[in-house]
Amino acid sequence: MDIMIVGAGNMARGIATRMLAGGHPVHIADIDIQAAQRLAAELDGDATGQLFEGPEDAKIVILAVPYPANVNIATEYRDALAGRIVVDVANPVDYATLDVLVTRDGNSSAEEVANAAPSARVVKAFNTTFAKTLVKEEPLDVFIAGNDASACETVADLARDGDMRPLMVGHLNHARHLEGFQMLNMKMQEQIGGQFSTRLTLDQG
Amino acid sequence: MDIMIVGAGNMARGIATRMLAGGHPVHIADIDIQAAQRLAAELDGDATGQLFEGPEDAKIVILAVPYPANVNIATEYRDALAGRIVVDVANPVDYATLDVLVTRDGNSSAEEVANAAPSARVVKAFNTTFAKTLVKEEPLDVFIAGNDASACETVADLARDGDMRPLMVGHLNHARHLEGFQMLNMKMQEQIGGQFSTRLTLDQG
Repeated sequence: MDIMIVGAGNMARGIATRMLAGGHPVHIADIDIQAAQRLAAELDGDATGQLFEGPEDAKIVILAVPYPANVNIATEYRDALAGRIVVDVANPVDYATLDVLVTRDGNSSAEEVANAAPSARVVKAFNTTFAKTLVKEEPLDVFIAGNDASACETVADLARDGDMRPLMVGHLNHARHLEGFQMLNMKMQEQIGGQFSTRLTLDQG
Repeated sequence: MDIMIVGAGNMARGIATRMLAGGHPVHIADIDIQAAQRLAAELDGDATGQLFEGPEDAKIVILAVPYPANVNIATEYRDALAGRIVVDVANPVDYATLDVLVTRDGNSSAEEVANAAPSARVVKAFNTTFAKTLVKEEPLDVFIAGNDASACETVADLARDGDMRPLMVGHLNHARHLEGFQMLNMKMQEQIGGQFSTRLTLDQG
């Protein structure tokens, strides 16, 4: 088992869709085994569903759960996650207002995950790609931040295999800028006429 | 005189180009009067160049100068700027590395301008639109942050008149997210094959 996606919600579905499109088998792991198995059955490709009880032998663990569940998992499985690539996709936003980040002052979700599991190779990615755009298999930019260059490259390869453009933004502390801007992106959906379906892209005009 | 653009560099040129395209006369004001007059002469439309000695009777003052010159101007002309719409376009970035924001911890350039001139109606805008994309008159998203809704609307109207799409991101404290993400945008230019010429956009796929 190489890739475990923790969570069985919309983001898990979206990311799994791209991993499978790239030819990578995925294990969907959730505390609700039935939700995990149902999602796995609905996906097109080599996907299995299981109860989440830790990373098992996954080399890459994608935390497709909301903040602070991601941090709680990192805390609980701190030792088991050591040496693994742990991908944080969360947006630590007050969803009632879309106006306030709910991390501790100045910190990002990704840094909190890294602090909770300091031997994990934490990478921030997929937080600006809405689930709806992932499942539609549109071209997307995937912004990647992390302190472990090789872990970032692995995540970039997965993005590329799934027909996305990986863009390296630098060290994990820049996750705060990705998370901050994404909150604005969410907040602007109504103005744009989007329904959490816009793509944040850098294009050449 | 309604619109004064302070500065005679690339951003002044880019913003003036859009204001003029929208039918709005501009006054280019710089501490180098010759640079201001030269730029005004090169622009297509009703532009004049002058020495910068304060906002005079401008209702809208666009600070198209780098950080911290914008803050210094706000400090020096604190009283004269009271009641005016002051647009901050700066990116307070360490240009040697494109990796560090150089504002005081957690603060944005726009908030520093507002702190320096607390009776000015400060609006953050145009910090994610590279000068090259402004002068080319490509469609652009202009992200607008500010605490004075009417001032934000005025800036939005100017953006719209110049064929851009204004998007309101909320209060001025969100300028930090616009500035943070734009630093990443700058840093990614090489990867994208851009030369400070990409457009940061939200599209519908």
